[in-house]
Amino acid sequence: MIDIKKMNSKELEEKARKIRELLITTVSRTGGHLAPNLGVVELTLAIHRVFDSPKDKIVFDVGHQSYVHKLLTGREERFPTLRQRFGIGPFADPSESEHDAFISGHAGTGISAALGIAKARSDSKVIVVIGDASIGNGHSMEALNNIGEDGKNIIVILNDNEMSIGRNVGTLSNFLSKLMSSTTYKGLRRDIRGIINKGKIGGKITSTLERAENSVKQFLSPLSISELLGFKFYGSVDGHNLQELEDYLIKAKNEEGPCFIHVKTQKGKGYIFAEEDSEKFHGVSPFNLETGQTGKNKESYSSIYGKKICELAEKDDNIIAISGAMIKGVGLGEFEKKYPDRIKDVGIAEGHGVTYSAGLAISGKKPYLTLYSTFMQRGFSQLIHDISLQKLPVKLMIDRAGIVGEDGKTHNGIYDIGMFLTVPNFIVFAPTTGKELTEIMEKTKNIEKSAVMIRYPREVAYEYELPGEFEIGKWREVKKGEKTLLISTGSMFQEVIDIEKKLIEYGINATIVSAASIKPLDEKYIVEEFKKYDNIFVLEEGYKINSFGSSIIEYLNENRILKKINKLSIENPSIPHGKRDILMKELGLRGDKLIERIKGSIDAQQ
Amino acid sequence: MIDIKKMNSKELEEKARKIRELLITTVSRTGGHLAPNLGVVELTLAIHRVFDSPKDKIVFDVGHQSYVHKLLTGREERFPTLRQRFGIGPFADPSESEHDAFISGHAGTGISAALGIAKARSDSKVIVVIGDASIGNGHSMEALNNIGEDGKNIIVILNDNEMSIGRNVGTLSNFLSKLMSSTTYKGLRRDIRGIINKGKIGGKITSTLERAENSVKQFLSPLSISELLGFKFYGSVDGHNLQELEDYLIKAKNEEGPCFIHVKTQKGKGYIFAEEDSEKFHGVSPFNLETGQTGKNKESYSSIYGKKICELAEKDDNIIAISGAMIKGVGLGEFEKKYPDRIKDVGIAEGHGVTYSAGLAISGKKPYLTLYSTFMQRGFSQLIHDISLQKLPVKLMIDRAGIVGEDGKTHNGIYDIGMFLTVPNFIVFAPTTGKELTEIMEKTKNIEKSAVMIRYPREVAYEYELPGEFEIGKWREVKKGEKTLLISTGSMFQEVIDIEKKLIEYGINATIVSAASIKPLDEKYIVEEFKKYDNIFVLEEGYKINSFGSSIIEYLNENRILKKINKLSIENPSIPHGKRDILMKELGLRGDKLIERIKGSIDAQQ
Repeated sequence: MIDIKKMNSKELEEKARKIRELLITTVSRTGGHLAPNLGVVELTLAIHRVFDSPKDKIVFDVGHQSYVHKLLTGREERFPTLRQRFGIGPFADPSESEHDAFISGHAGTGISAALGIAKARSDSKVIVVIGDASIGNGHSMEALNNIGEDGKNIIVILNDNEMSIGRNVGTLSNFLSKLMSSTTYKGLRRDIRGIINKGKIGGKITSTLERAENSVKQFLSPLSISELLGFKFYGSVDGHNLQELEDYLIKAKNEEGPCFIHVKTQKGKGYIFAEEDSEKFHGVSPFNLETGQTGKNKESYSSIYGKKICELAEKDDNIIAISGAMIKGVGLGEFEKKYPDRIKDVGIAEGHGVTYSAGLAISGKKPYLTLYSTFMQRGFSQLIHDISLQKLPVKLMIDRAGIVGEDGKTHNGIYDIGMFLTVPNFIVFAPTTGKELTEIMEKTKNIEKSAVMIRYPREVAYEYELPGEFEIGKWREVKKGEKTLLISTGSMFQEVIDIEKKLIEYGINATIVSAASIKPLDEKYIVEEFKKYDNIFVLEEGYKINSFGSSIIEYLNENRILKKINKLSIENPSIPHGKRDILMKELGLRGDKLIERIKGSIDAQQ
Repeated sequence: MIDIKKMNSKELEEKARKIRELLITTVSRTGGHLAPNLGVVELTLAIHRVFDSPKDKIVFDVGHQSYVHKLLTGREERFPTLRQRFGIGPFADPSESEHDAFISGHAGTGISAALGIAKARSDSKVIVVIGDASIGNGHSMEALNNIGEDGKNIIVILNDNEMSIGRNVGTLSNFLSKLMSSTTYKGLRRDIRGIINKGKIGGKITSTLERAENSVKQFLSPLSISELLGFKFYGSVDGHNLQELEDYLIKAKNEEGPCFIHVKTQKGKGYIFAEEDSEKFHGVSPFNLETGQTGKNKESYSSIYGKKICELAEKDDNIIAISGAMIKGVGLGEFEKKYPDRIKDVGIAEGHGVTYSAGLAISGKKPYLTLYSTFMQRGFSQLIHDISLQKLPVKLMIDRAGIVGEDGKTHNGIYDIGMFLTVPNFIVFAPTTGKELTEIMEKTKNIEKSAVMIRYPREVAYEYELPGEFEIGKWREVKKGEKTLLISTGSMFQEVIDIEKKLIEYGINATIVSAASIKPLDEKYIVEEFKKYDNIFVLEEGYKINSFGSSIIEYLNENRILKKINKLSIENPSIPHGKRDILMKELGLRGDKLIERIKGSIDAQQ
């Protein structure tokens, strides 16, 4: 293989074409972030031609745009394993390659990490590639705001594919990029230059005009913006013109001091379906190469939520839905169409989203803040400060709770139960069926003195006819057995039902309980029923620390019911990427592996 | 009392004078945030003259600048009880007054809350007062970035007292405020206007010049900035000129759409000592009115930390200290002087601070990120994503852990143990004496495969000669008793020693253990010693959920040691403001109240 640094322009064109081909064919089979990567083919080639990785450090903010980088750093052969167990990971990750300078999965962390790296290494250039939606995240802006002297070897590349445009977010970031793209400035300069060149005016006035121009320049020139912002600014650069990209990167490389390069790219470039619907192809499931069609999805928890909130909203004008750059992902697409005035996309700004929702709630509205579990972590402080301390009735709808599969370790939703149990004034639920999700929403819709958290997985909703009705603080016994008690919350109920028969074959005729109510616990059930069993298991799809199981153990200790509880949850949260089914089994949460865990504990107890 | 709306300018001047007098005399006795409030006397008067609270909603971002507002909304008489138990609170708080539209304690939440309130109430104006340090916080910028249509009744008042200037933070926020103060724009306009008025040029050129001016105007005028940023902009306004303030506030009030008013104020205005040393008088302990002198402080944990890190840094060039707008507060003043190149103030940007530290650590440096416990909450997601997943050896030094006293409910540091136990790849300590803090720092300084968290309170360091040496995962038995075992971590060790004799009078001759090692636990001690006791207590100054006690209970359950543990921790985290001593007693963590709790549990067990 020829070193890309030595390629001529024709060879590079061919290389770019092949990369695109590989991206499209691979992602059509594996699913993944296609459109962003098609957009950065030339940009990534240019970066690797101008800089020397791993000596120079390349940080991807949100590594979903790092596929091309992976291809150029020794991972081409393994690329077909993208997002698969033991395959190439979904984001940049130092444990995968020395060319990945820092982990990336959550937006907004890149510039901070780069600043730390640049402070530590005076002999490397540090390049950050960040998207235009991510630059508006508070974490990014904190870092931009804090460049200081550490930034002298930093080059921030704003990959502007207009991800954040056309939505109601991004005032400040749009402002900055408009300011920086400085076309107005260019136009203005031309105007003034034009006046001067008319030549019809005397020398004195010309010099006054020149002074005026200088004063405009001083205010608006890249130099001045860079002084004010602490950056040297370049742009806009055509992100698909390799020569232009390289020219600017070389300029930046030779600069002493932080540089900011504004690159315009087209999402989905080179694949017609992705160009036409870049949102769909941002992160896409496997699709048909010829038609761009993905498979039909069965009804997910997200879509059940989306329908139910529309139904509630129809009867209650106070309901407002909030999400963070994920309106469709969390099932609010229909709500947005029906109630455009009652939905708010806060962008990648979860902390702000929490406090915004608290502001709505304190004014009598009924906010439903809907986020992926992993991103909810970013609003933890606001849960305490703005919701809990003021006891505000905000609904926190936590989608993608549990194992997310191919998106891997940065995206698993395994801390949400712990987070919400830590903070008072929340009640916490995990429905065990699709129907129960709607029941919980119905039952909690008018709660005034407490916030409500409801978590559900990225899954087809489970259909199962639970006995009786959902009640807060009440579990449902689905089947009466003996000796062994299986209490499962959320997704784990289905896992238990799935192994029920096999357990019986092993001589384990367990009582099966569907426990959607994580907080409050069903204290009555615990006090009256637990004593009847030799082996008690609590099953949940979350990290074992401060879990549903933990809170049962605490309850028992507090009430001096000295009984061993077997927690069947996630032991080690560093969970790799791969098919959810494979991971669930590896984690001992599904099928035979789950049976083994149950059997093992029962055997140990005897 | 005359309504301030009806006062003439002389009466207002007199009112302002009286307010300052009351602020100074009260805070000299109670301690508190003096300088910021002296700076906003005229601004707050103007706000209340122009708007109608509580119909119009006034939100203070960081409510430490809300004292004047409190005085003007019915709390003058009770003002001498400021920051005392059952007295006027330290920050704005809706549970104290209907005039406080939203809770405030942590910086950066104000604009988000105001946006939510504005969305919910179309008939109110919503006024946010925010400081220039706070506007650079990521949460503020997320909110600014997300004004959208909700902002139509919002008036953001930037109280610029140059808090963030002169420090190495605030590139972006400085840029924005410079841009907004638009003096350069004003100068430019004058220049162009000057050219046109020279009158020596013909009509055609005049019109061309006018076009040029228009094009400048279009780019730079408040209108255009407001269009770009979504705000109408006014300023800078002299924050001590009541008439000017009112004029601008009235303009803003009549505006349709969000307004941003840049107000320049002087911290400490009207009290010579506070004007001269506004940093000291930002938040000050009780002081002598005549001299401005505060009492001498005894040696705190913060200062012991500050000395020890200087000592470590002398021998190890890789050590770097990081803090967030609190260099002196966390004891790093001396370090900053000695190693100006090895300290980083990230500003009020804790999330960024965590990732920045991770960037340093991944590059081989040894970062010590030092934050107040309550502010550590703001970097929770980054602890998971950037430190834990990459197993980076960052030191998290958590100051102000536990009850902070007069700063009240938003500032107590009671969730840190829970946070750090939730996330893997941290080891967690709470030294029980000042000397032990230095021992822990010594012992952990070269740990490479794990992050380290060390928590300590806002307290004079406890002096006590512990037996033996500190070891990771080993507790120290200080006194051998019988039947009752008291395991205390951090500050609670001193509380136990303080009641030791009295307990014996009650017939409780307890074994006393100093347990600095929260994670890992001293498993050997648990397994071998616990069985010898009837009553086991675990004492900690933190919230009971996911606590040190919880992790012991979990360990016992896991290992089938079925023994009741009595947790002596904080039952309800909504802890009011007041003297630490009073609160510790109320919470049952000190003196007779602690004895009662212990005795009560022992009695119940019998």
